Amino acid sequence: MSDLHTLSLLVENKPGVLTRVTSLIARRGYNIASLAVDRVEDPTLSRVTIVVEADATPTEQIIKQLHKLVDVHKIYRLDDEDSVSRELALFKVAVTPDQRPEIISITNVYRARVLDISPDSMIIEATGNGNKLDTMEGLLREYGIKEIVRTGKVALSRGLRD
Amino acid sequence: MSDLHTLSLLVENKPGVLTRVTSLIARRGYNIASLAVDRVEDPTLSRVTIVVEADATPTEQIIKQLHKLVDVHKIYRLDDEDSVSRELALFKVAVTPDQRPEIISITNVYRARVLDISPDSMIIEATGNGNKLDTMEGLLREYGIKEIVRTGKVALSRGLRD
Repeated sequence: MSDLHTLSLLVENKPGVLTRVTSLIARRGYNIASLAVDRVEDPTLSRVTIVVEADATPTEQIIKQLHKLVDVHKIYRLDDEDSVSRELALFKVAVTPDQRPEIISITNVYRARVLDISPDSMIIEATGNGNKLDTMEGLLREYGIKEIVRTGKVALSRGLRD
Repeated sequence: MSDLHTLSLLVENKPGVLTRVTSLIARRGYNIASLAVDRVEDPTLSRVTIVVEADATPTEQIIKQLHKLVDVHKIYRLDDEDSVSRELALFKVAVTPDQRPEIISITNVYRARVLDISPDSMIIEATGNGNKLDTMEGLLREYGIKEIVRTGKVALSRGLRD
């Protein structure tokens, strides 16, 4: 049973870079549990947050290899103890009008938000760690989840670096 | 000037699939503005949300090509009019203790949340569309943004599909 490791990379924002990063990980046979990439302050750069399923030692090897890619500027590992992490999920739930108050109650307890209501469904936005989102998913499944989309984890280290 | 197009893919959750998807897009010279991938209800599948910078016609060609990949089960395009979308951002801002109330005010206005406070910094969680997050980033930049991580856009179509 392998563990989940979170890597944060600052890379060039140009075609092909993401492919080089993911193929390096895949070639070693490790699965990417989640990945999120978007621009940062500097529009020429992107930050990639990857959760890899691997043992500790292979993760060190992956980091060393990623360092060698020319388009990768910085890379660090984020541990749960010294970082803050969040994910976002959108749930589309099949809901009859009389069930709406129950869904709204769940939404309030989880500090989530209702984004859309149709005659037969609702879309809920929730943020938190993976466990919280999994628990909320379990509750909503009772009503019938029609679609889920999750961003994967993003994280920042606590405090300022030197 | 190319436009941004949002694609949602349901793919096999196994090593190499993400690489095949991103390399197909990169080989055609199109940049991926953001990408988010995570598991769905069925643990053997993942949902990938990709924002591609391309003209309308190349996007249709990309969709046709992606359909041919064996590990891609479903793919559809999400337009702003008939879908709900959100992104999540974490901002680490340099903040002196006397500036904290100002940051907390901004956080309240944007319905964002303070996740961490250190003697010289704060970490803020915000969700919304890209424009809202950009505006908030602009306000926080006045104080000094030390790090940003964003998930990229995720989206679901409104209502139930047939």
